[in-house]
Formats: sequence, C-alpha cells, structure tokens
Amino acid sequence: MSSMRVLRERAKAFRDLHHSGRLLLLPNAWDVPSARIFEDAGFPAVGTSSAMISVSMGYPDGEQIPKHELFPVVRRMADALAVPLSADIESGYGATLAQLTDTVRRVVDAGAIGVNLEDVADFRTGSLEPIDRQVERIETVRAVAGSLGVPLVINARTDADRLAPGDKRARLDEAIRRGQAYKSAGADCLYPIGLTDRPSIRRFVREVDHPVNVMARKATPPAAELRELGVRRLSLGPGPMYATMALLRKAGRELLTRGTYTTLTAGAIGFDELNALARPRH
Amino acid sequence: MSSMRVLRERAKAFRDLHHSGRLLLLPNAWDVPSARIFEDAGFPAVGTSSAMISVSMGYPDGEQIPKHELFPVVRRMADALAVPLSADIESGYGATLAQLTDTVRRVVDAGAIGVNLEDVADFRTGSLEPIDRQVERIETVRAVAGSLGVPLVINARTDADRLAPGDKRARLDEAIRRGQAYKSAGADCLYPIGLTDRPSIRRFVREVDHPVNVMARKATPPAAELRELGVRRLSLGPGPMYATMALLRKAGRELLTRGTYTTLTAGAIGFDELNALARPRH
Repeated sequence: MSSMRVLRERAKAFRDLHHSGRLLLLPNAWDVPSARIFEDAGFPAVGTSSAMISVSMGYPDGEQIPKHELFPVVRRMADALAVPLSADIESGYGATLAQLTDTVRRVVDAGAIGVNLEDVADFRTGSLEPIDRQVERIETVRAVAGSLGVPLVINARTDADRLAPGDKRARLDEAIRRGQAYKSAGADCLYPIGLTDRPSIRRFVREVDHPVNVMARKATPPAAELRELGVRRLSLGPGPMYATMALLRKAGRELLTRGTYTTLTAGAIGFDELNALARPRH
Repeated sequence: MSSMRVLRERAKAFRDLHHSGRLLLLPNAWDVPSARIFEDAGFPAVGTSSAMISVSMGYPDGEQIPKHELFPVVRRMADALAVPLSADIESGYGATLAQLTDTVRRVVDAGAIGVNLEDVADFRTGSLEPIDRQVERIETVRAVAGSLGVPLVINARTDADRLAPGDKRARLDEAIRRGQAYKSAGADCLYPIGLTDRPSIRRFVREVDHPVNVMARKATPPAAELRELGVRRLSLGPGPMYATMALLRKAGRELLTRGTYTTLTAGAIGFDELNALARPRH
C-alpha cells in the first residue's frame, strides 16, 4: 500500500497536470495490465472506469458492483502503477453523506489520488441530484479527503446533458449552472459528460472558467482542437474495453468461420511483455 | 453458484465435444466480459488462462497468484456463462497431493467442469515432475472429482518440449511417453505445449491415440489442417490478452503522438453491448 506521503505527492502532481497549459491525456483502465500498458506507453496518469471495472467483475454499470469488490481492483491498479491513479466512484455508492464519506475513505485507502463524482441521484430512474445537494456532496468529499491529509483531485461530473429536462440548449444551460456550482464547492475539474460538439464545449469551458474534462468518443474533436477550445483533460471512459471486446469478437468470428488466427496474432505482444505488466515499475 | 446437476451436465457436454469428430475450438478468457464475448460469438465452451488471470490480478504467471484470489475470478466467469468453463490450474498450486486435492475441490466449487494440469514441478527452476509422480497427481484429480460427483474433464499438459533434456527429438519422445502415461492415468485430453509444427503434431497424435489439445500461435497450422492431423481441441492460451494489450498500446501511442482515437473507436462495441456482457444469458 502507498504511504500517505506518496499519495500526497501523487495528488499534487496529478492536480498540476490540469494546470500545465497542456491537455492532460488520461487513459482509463480496468485492471493491472490495462493500466500498466498505458503507463508504459508514456501517459502521466491513469483513470479507472466504473463501467469497465463493473463489467469485468460481472456487474452492469450504475453502482451495481458492491464496494468490497470494487476497491480491491482499485488497490491492485494503484499498487502496480508508479503514476497517479484517479478512481471513478460513480455517485459515491450510497444515498447518505455517511456512505459517501466511507467511499472516499476507502478509495484513498486503496491508493487513488483523484475521483470522478457524478450527480446522478438514482441510476434506475435516471434522476439528477438537486444542485445544492450535489454541492454538499462535493464539499463532503473535499472535507473527508482533507481530514485524511490527501489533496484529492475531484473531477465533478454532471450528467445534465443526458438527464436534465428540456432541449439540448436547456440541458447545456443546466450543465453550466452545475459546473459553476461544483467549482465553487471545491471541484478541481468539471466533467460535462455527453458534450462532444465544438460550440457546446467552447461555451461550457468559457462559462465555467475552470479545468474541463471531455471524453474521447467517435464524435469528439481530436486533442489538438480540444486544446484550442480550452479543454484541460481528455479521458477515454469505457472506450478501451469497447475496443478490446470488439477485437476479441472479431478474432472469435475469424476462428469460427475461417479457422485462422490472424486477428489474434498480428502485432500482438508476447509472453514476457505480458508478464512484465504485472511487475511494478516503482 | 451452479448446482451439481448443472455441473455434471456441463462436464459431460464438454467431454463429448472432444469426441464429436470435429475440432473443439476453445477460446481462453480472463474475466467476465472476455468469456462472454466468446460465448456470444458462438463458442461451445470457454477456458481460463492462468497467465491472463494472473497478470490481470497483478501477478506474473507461474503459480504466483494466491488461490484465494484466483478462484473468485473462476467463479465469476462460470456464473456468467451458460456454456462449460474449463479452468487452468497450472500445476495444482502446491507440492503435496493434499494441496492438489484442495485445489480441485475449490475449482469445482467455483463452477469449472474441466482443468488443465501441468507437469511442472518447480516454476523457478523449470523442472518437470517425474512421470510416476504426475500420474499419481492425475489419478488424484480424477479421484477427488469423482468423490465430488463431477466427471471433470482433465486436460493433462506436458511441458516436456520446453523443459525436458535433450534435443527437439528427445523432448518430443519424452512428451509422447508422458502423454501415454497421462492417458492411462485417466486424462481426457493431452496437451503437449510448444508443438506447432505439423510432423511433431502428427506423430504425437498418432502415438498417444487419444484427444490432443494444440495451442493457437502464429506458427500453428489453421484449424482445418489441425483437424486433418487428428487434433481434437484447439485453445488460444494467453493469445487474447497478447492481442488486446497490443491494441491498447497502439491506441495509447496514437493518442500520445497524433491526438486521435481511431484505433479506439473503429469497429468498437457500444455501452449497451458492453453492459450486456455482464448479464448472465442463462
């Protein structure tokens, strides 16, 4: 397990990556080798993805994975990495501030130095937390992390684009209103999920005047354009697992229909390279 | 958890797949979605791979993963699948027959209906079990599974090609000698790892006169040729993770050097498809 000194240093280094003037490229992973392959490729930090970890453990996304199954995964990833790890904690795994507090304690104990916190109140009905309530929750995360001595990097996600009422314009207005409130509550970065078009990203960035996280999707502008739009952080979300599962499906179909293995073997890494991903670099 | 009736049925169905006159195509997986994507593609069974599960959990291959971390993974995979799951138990996780007995109990309890058992005595020194000893170990697996009421499908792997003394010919002779002995001990299938060339495969198959498992590697003949050589089972070993890690490395490098996401998004599956991999089909 990481010492508190190491955690503090990693948290500070991770926060600085949001203020370097460059775009922080943050790949998401779900287990030790997916995290390590990105670290080895040269990324300065790694994020988890709730969807990828949950599905990997046999649960659909949306807070269905029990905490006692989630946090050992986060710990294994943090232990295997020399770079900072930020953890996706969905909406905090619990309706009460006491449950949120427990989640923050566990995620720091697991070795993560950042969190994504969503404003989804109920994953089944798809309702958003009232702004005031989400502000209180962000303040709680900040206070708990402070009491633990870790300057946790809080990425405050809003699902307003998906779950707020009204048309696209009204939902963007709501995302901005929430972004501004979450910034005042102490969030280090704002994550308006669903925003991929340039005008919406530009307006959100300008009106919150704070580091903003965008997710790489098919429609997302390339990194150079995001940088010009003022975006500070680009993450991959569940993209890595969308891609790897598609690869396995393609390899499986090739084997079943043609009896060959080219999808599997072309450009693949080898046994020693795979094993090396399980050996800590630090 | 699967009932004993279901386990027995799956074990019988899996054994029958070795005697259908067709080549059993057995993809290897390491977690729930990698297992389910293969099941969904149409494979009649799935195998685990010790290398892939170990690395995924942060351990290099070679019996370094503790049993209490390994078997929950096997259980999650078995619970998520409607098709039979065969588990790679390396050399049985322990030098004694009592430890091997414990391993077999756990793997059946986890829901697997087949095992790969290796004849490696010591992973650090790379020594083989004496044949008599390995025969005794296979007989033990058969007896323990029998006492549990499950007709466990035993795939007896020999690492003679890699670890036996002498030249390639002498090592093949040793692999055949071991294959014949393991067959007599009750193994359902023989797995001479390392054999990829046609003459060696043909000779091994002919001299053991029993179902034989070959691993798909770059040099392995395609499935149609293996069938003509008399091979009954083709598995992928750690190939799926070699391929997916290479894909993530490529996607990471593309993002770092060009700031684009085409490796990640081209042909990828979507959120609903990913989530569906965590929902049991049965």
